[in-house]
This record gives sequence, structure tokens and C-alpha cells, in this order.
Amino acid sequence: MNVLLVFAHPEPRSLTGALRDVAVAELTAQGHRVRLSDLYAQGWKAQVDRADFPVLEPEERLMVAAASGRAFAAGALTADVRAEQEKLRWADAVLFQFPLWWFGMPAILKGWVERVYAYGFGYGVGEHSDRRWGDRYGEGTLAGKRAMLLVTAGGWAEHYGPRGINGPIDDLLFPIQHGVLFYPGFTVLPPYVLYRADRLDAAGFAAAAAHLRERMRTLETTAPIAFRRQNGGDYTIPAMQLRPGLEAPGATGFALHRTER
Amino acid sequence: MNVLLVFAHPEPRSLTGALRDVAVAELTAQGHRVRLSDLYAQGWKAQVDRADFPVLEPEERLMVAAASGRAFAAGALTADVRAEQEKLRWADAVLFQFPLWWFGMPAILKGWVERVYAYGFGYGVGEHSDRRWGDRYGEGTLAGKRAMLLVTAGGWAEHYGPRGINGPIDDLLFPIQHGVLFYPGFTVLPPYVLYRADRLDAAGFAAAAAHLRERMRTLETTAPIAFRRQNGGDYTIPAMQLRPGLEAPGATGFALHRTER
Repeated sequence: MNVLLVFAHPEPRSLTGALRDVAVAELTAQGHRVRLSDLYAQGWKAQVDRADFPVLEPEERLMVAAASGRAFAAGALTADVRAEQEKLRWADAVLFQFPLWWFGMPAILKGWVERVYAYGFGYGVGEHSDRRWGDRYGEGTLAGKRAMLLVTAGGWAEHYGPRGINGPIDDLLFPIQHGVLFYPGFTVLPPYVLYRADRLDAAGFAAAAAHLRERMRTLETTAPIAFRRQNGGDYTIPAMQLRPGLEAPGATGFALHRTER
Repeated sequence: MNVLLVFAHPEPRSLTGALRDVAVAELTAQGHRVRLSDLYAQGWKAQVDRADFPVLEPEERLMVAAASGRAFAAGALTADVRAEQEKLRWADAVLFQFPLWWFGMPAILKGWVERVYAYGFGYGVGEHSDRRWGDRYGEGTLAGKRAMLLVTAGGWAEHYGPRGINGPIDDLLFPIQHGVLFYPGFTVLPPYVLYRADRLDAAGFAAAAAHLRERMRTLETTAPIAFRRQNGGDYTIPAMQLRPGLEAPGATGFALHRTER
């Protein structure tokens, strides 16, 4: 497979960096082709602003979705954004590797999403009718590709458990896994999450690396998270409500949107 | 009250900008003092990197929490970060206004959190023992101050409802309201959320502005979200598990961490 690794840590000598090297080595050993987007090393511009849309007139009001759609359609997005879109089209699988900061992606990676997912590419794709509501949530530009998060967290696993104070990790990652990955079409694999990342000793690293290698070896075969496809009949259109009776037993909140808990 | 408004939109002529003017005018009319952090206008640096920590030696490995704590303790954070911390100390209430992009804060605001919430200021505060696990989740540097989100979203309200495809808005905002605001001590008010923001007509704007004015008039009196305090006895230490039997009827996931649903 062609594998793109999007990496968002400012320090290559970090634990996150060491795990990246483990992942890349294992993927290469398995015969995959690997490309890297190292956001800090590339000097990635984190925020969306006027400079992203050279098509705008100097006095024109910036409406991000409209400007993004116009620039994408005209092939006039900036070169850094077009390069990332090209890598996404090339990839069969995309890994997003980052430390969990304040219960989400680092700003630089969030800005990668905001800039690379142009209107017409990451959203605003497909027809709206009484049977379809655009190509999203399981359909879209990135359909057929696998995606997976590689996350390092400072807190304890228990703190991210079903009754842990931080909230369950699956729910904390839902806005990313469902809202950022499944939305434009990715098939989303269960994440690799390493806890207490800042207290890891040598034995802990060896175990973490072994687990990561195993996940890399099974990248093509791991069963994905069973998110419901938007246009598959489970939701009313246009209100986009899950139809009565479809929820898994006991499921509420985000868990409604998976066919198993 | 002293009110800080942290604003994250690249276009002052946007709907978000118009609502900001409504909020500021109403707060001023009520006799509050208002200060603004307009992140795009200030040219806020979105990403955390080495440049944030002049205390680091050139060849020294960047460990963000450690470097942040050292710089904070030495008064050696960068001037832009220290200015934001001073505004937070000055404020009795803080409003965070932004468009919901990819189900979260814009990157520039996420980066404000990552940089301003230094170790020793936003986290890493207080003692750890068998009765306390640091000053966080209801205690901390920002305790006694109110915080509230002002959010504009492109999608329909139904899509963010209890069974809507995007997931419930309260759950989507939990990583921010609980993880970013309650964590360092803020008292968190229910958010102001405006849906279908890109399709608003004049009548819709008048209604949205009236609702926003009402929320600004009641900023001091609105009942906060009833998040559970970490060190109040509801959680085991150090596993930080919600004790059995404390959940509100039917609550799972994020809702466990509120005393009412």
C-alpha cells in the first residue's frame, strides 16, 4: 500500500518521534511505500486566512467556504495545500500521529485539516436530494482509503476510561475520527493510544513499540470502526436523525453512530 | 465585571464579527469593562514550538511541558503569551467566540490554548496526594471566573441534536467546555450556539442578536453547567473514576461528569 504519515510534533527526538520511526520501519519492512508530512519540519502554516486564497480581491470579504471552493475549482489553492491533497490522493492509508494536547489535535494539525480539506475536496462534495445529503460520512473524496490515529497522551489510561474524569477516549476522539476522518470518506481504524507518555521507561517503550509494529502489520486487515454511512438508510433526510430503533442496546450520544458499541 | 472576549475569525465583516459587535455593545451598555483578544488581527502565532521557550539551549531537546513550566516560573514566556495571561487574570468572565470548524475550535484558538495555558498556569497546578490530584477540574488558576462559548455553526440544529448525525452539540463541545475551560478552574456557562450561520437572513440575524444580548445581560446570573469537581469526593484518587452510583439516571459517557443531564 501507499501510506502517508502526517506527523505533528515539534521535536523529532520526542517519544512521538521515536514511535514514528518504529512505524515507518515496520511499514517499509512490510513492503509498503511511505511518505511523510512532518508539519513542524515543513513550517506548515497553521491558520486559515486570506493568504490561502489568492483569488480574493484585496477588498473582498473573506467567506472561507466560498473562497475555498472557488480556489479549489480553479486549481488556485496555495502550493503547500495542493501538495498535501496530492499526497492524500496517492495514499491508500493515512496515519495521523500527534500528542493529545488539551483533549484534541495540536493546533498545527487542526490547521492542516482546515486548509487541506478545501470546499469541493473535504466537504461540499456530491448532490443533495431527498435520498442523499452530499457525499459525506462514509462517502466522498477519500472513500476507499484507510485512516488511523497514533496518539500519545500524558494522562493515565484509567482517566480516559468509561468512568474516568477526562471522559472516554473513544468519545474524545469522535470529533476527529467521525467528524474529520469518516466525514470525507475515510474508513477509520481503531486508534493506537499510548498513555502516560511522559513517564515511559525502557520496558514500557519496548512494549509500546511492539504493539505499534503489530498495528502496522495489520493495517490492511484490521476491522474498522463501524460508523454508520449517512446515505445508507439509517438517517432521515434532511434532518439527519438516526431512525428510531436502530441504536445498539444502551447506546446514547456518540455511540448511536456506530452499529456496535 | 471585567470581560475578556477572545475572538477567532479571520474576517471582521463576518457574521461572527457582527455578533461580536452586538456582544461588546451590550456588555458596555451594562457597565462592564471589555477587553478583546482578536487573534487574527493580532497576528497570533498558532503553533507551539521552540520559539516559545527562549530558556531552551539551542541543542536541548524540546519537552513542551517541562520547557513551559521552566519558562513560566522564570517569567520568561514570550511577551504575547504573558499579555494574554495578564488579561485572563484581569477578567471576571471570558468569552470565546469562534466558528465551529471541523467540530472544534479554529486552529488559531487551539494554539492560543496550547501557548497561553503554560505548565504552572493552565495545568501542573497544586499538590498531588491521596485526597487531591492537583488543582484542576473546578479548581486552579482561573477559579472564580466565568467562561462561555459563542459559537457559529454552518450545519442545522437538528444535525447536532441528541440523535443527529454530527453528534450532540453538548458532547462535541465537552472537550472544550470540560477539558479546556473547567480544567483550569473556570465556571462554565451554557454556550451560545447559532446554527446555519451561512444562511442567515435579516430576520434571522435580528433574532440571533436579541438572543445574544439576553445572554450578555445574564452573564453574571446564568446558572453554570454542573460539572463535577475533581477533588469534591465524587472521584477515586488516583484512578479518577466516578464513584459507583453517582451518575444521573441514564447517564453514560461525558454526561457522567455533570450532576444533572
